[in-house]
Amino acid sequence: MNAQITTSRRTRRTPFSQYVEDAGVRAYTVYNRMLLPAVFRSLEEDYHHLKSAVQVWDVSCERQVRLRGPDALRMLQLLTPRDLTKISTKRCMYVPITDQNGGMLNDPVAIKISDEEVWISIADSDLLFWVQAIAGCNGFHVVVDEAEVFPLAVQGPKATELTARVFGDRIREMKFFGADRFVFADEEILITRTGYSKQGGFEIYVEGRHYAGELWHALFEAGADLDVRAGCPNLIERIEGGLLSFGNDMTFENTPLECGLGRCVNDSQLATCYGGRALAEERANGSQRMVRALTVSDKIPRCDRAWPLISNERLVGQITSAYRSPDFGVNVAIGMVDHTHWDAGTEMTVMTHAGPRAAKVQQKFWI
Amino acid sequence: MNAQITTSRRTRRTPFSQYVEDAGVRAYTVYNRMLLPAVFRSLEEDYHHLKSAVQVWDVSCERQVRLRGPDALRMLQLLTPRDLTKISTKRCMYVPITDQNGGMLNDPVAIKISDEEVWISIADSDLLFWVQAIAGCNGFHVVVDEAEVFPLAVQGPKATELTARVFGDRIREMKFFGADRFVFADEEILITRTGYSKQGGFEIYVEGRHYAGELWHALFEAGADLDVRAGCPNLIERIEGGLLSFGNDMTFENTPLECGLGRCVNDSQLATCYGGRALAEERANGSQRMVRALTVSDKIPRCDRAWPLISNERLVGQITSAYRSPDFGVNVAIGMVDHTHWDAGTEMTVMTHAGPRAAKVQQKFWI
Repeated sequence: MNAQITTSRRTRRTPFSQYVEDAGVRAYTVYNRMLLPAVFRSLEEDYHHLKSAVQVWDVSCERQVRLRGPDALRMLQLLTPRDLTKISTKRCMYVPITDQNGGMLNDPVAIKISDEEVWISIADSDLLFWVQAIAGCNGFHVVVDEAEVFPLAVQGPKATELTARVFGDRIREMKFFGADRFVFADEEILITRTGYSKQGGFEIYVEGRHYAGELWHALFEAGADLDVRAGCPNLIERIEGGLLSFGNDMTFENTPLECGLGRCVNDSQLATCYGGRALAEERANGSQRMVRALTVSDKIPRCDRAWPLISNERLVGQITSAYRSPDFGVNVAIGMVDHTHWDAGTEMTVMTHAGPRAAKVQQKFWI
Repeated sequence: MNAQITTSRRTRRTPFSQYVEDAGVRAYTVYNRMLLPAVFRSLEEDYHHLKSAVQVWDVSCERQVRLRGPDALRMLQLLTPRDLTKISTKRCMYVPITDQNGGMLNDPVAIKISDEEVWISIADSDLLFWVQAIAGCNGFHVVVDEAEVFPLAVQGPKATELTARVFGDRIREMKFFGADRFVFADEEILITRTGYSKQGGFEIYVEGRHYAGELWHALFEAGADLDVRAGCPNLIERIEGGLLSFGNDMTFENTPLECGLGRCVNDSQLATCYGGRALAEERANGSQRMVRALTVSDKIPRCDRAWPLISNERLVGQITSAYRSPDFGVNVAIGMVDHTHWDAGTEMTVMTHAGPRAAKVQQKFWI
């Protein structure tokens, strides 16, 4: 399949789209009805560069669902099974959001801005609708909207060096999932030590459009000798690293426990949060299926649909992301596998749309 | 901008994607996280063909939010300001869905399947999240989910002829927004006389994947002498016809009254439906802005972002869809214009991203 993408106001441009296009973006996807770069040179070239240098990513599509008001934090706690006691303005948290059945509606990062304001940095679904309805129904004192914020990620082994050159050395002291404000162009800008790669880096929450261009260019000027390039989340690197993609590897048909997010499901919350009862039952009885790293044999097509996993003519799961890893020399994959077949070393057949291949459960991801 | 689209499980394929690609789709967009064809030969060629012959459209991305249970209809009535007294299993209705402020969350068609089942055939937003939250909060006896239904549209002046050849002459008796069941391949299939063009036609609600291929091929075999082609909603034709696009010409920042949908806002519902109070106030006080047909001078770029409308150095609205009409020889456009400037004949400046152009409010759309 070799089709162009058409654009319209509905598939929103970002303050960085022009720069991304100047940098030669070859393919886009649409994420939260916004353009998200997917390929610059090639998936493989982008991959090698991400793992060796530093990239600046336009991830404006990580929209911020903003809760403002005295009930903001209390409401957030109702939306997730994760205990938020330790969230602070210096520490953000990954918070699966669950529906009444424990199904995942989104897997965002929540950032505490103040005692009366929270941003939920979302994956690809209209979490705004859910939060807004719940706020109204429960009479919470909170205003819910989508903030004019356009995150920019700096990712790669040289990300700390580059970010420190632009925002100062204090950035080096931040811990993983730390949050703080740094000055650029007379603005106090929120930065978190997060990002959708395993190479390390930061996310910069660009508020409004007025300094977006200046920041983009400052990063590229400061990083010229670091071989900084425009980049984007890389399919191969994220599969190797076991970074699940909402909509690909998990949907609202999956619970956080199935997604291997048990650490984000805290017993203390299950009596009160949405879906808590279902999650408590699943924890007590054991999950029926769970995310696994897998390898797939031979040549494989683009994994643009779920591939059934078959054993003894029985459906035992599915693979939802897969690609040839240049560094590991195998096809790396992420799948959801039934408990009968999820042990490391288990072999089965995966039905790709180009025919069957051999699949094997791995002990862990490639990190 | 000339970028490819990347695909993954997240940007879902449909039962018809392979046929659409065999037919030479040149560009896709993503709609409800599903592939929607946007161009086959060219926008202009597709346009002329749609207005003279008949096309089969893969509009599987019109996902069906399904409400099942004794409260299904009662709940639907709460979600929309439109009076649903006349909805029946033989008559579907266009129902704007509004939030607490009267903002549009979606502009779907609602189809009554039975006294205890409704399908909401949605535009591009996760209405499921809103409906599910509201059902839970209010304790409605209703199960809400997304049905495995993949609509196929037959559109164009020869649509009735083609559809009658496949489903029988009874199809000719259906009225606009009529709904009924017709037999194909031993299945009773729901068909409505609806569609996202002004050329007339039908939407066929393909349930599941098992007869999708057979139906696609039957339509092409039956229509060979009618010059049937694979097609898709056409940007130019829909602007001429004044068919608003959710996400383009209206968002949750707009009310149905602003969108010219006053006929769907019934006073009898405003005491009870979501956003009813805001809509009652707007009706009493008059809307501040409203959708208008406009023309734009000279050559224009692709309208992939909102273009501000300026008069005397003041922002007075925006254009959100625009394209050169081959049949009318002008750039046709859809915009939201402040009440101070919405009268037919009003001239102002539109700031496209390629520079200013002259814009003029029209009496009506090109129909």
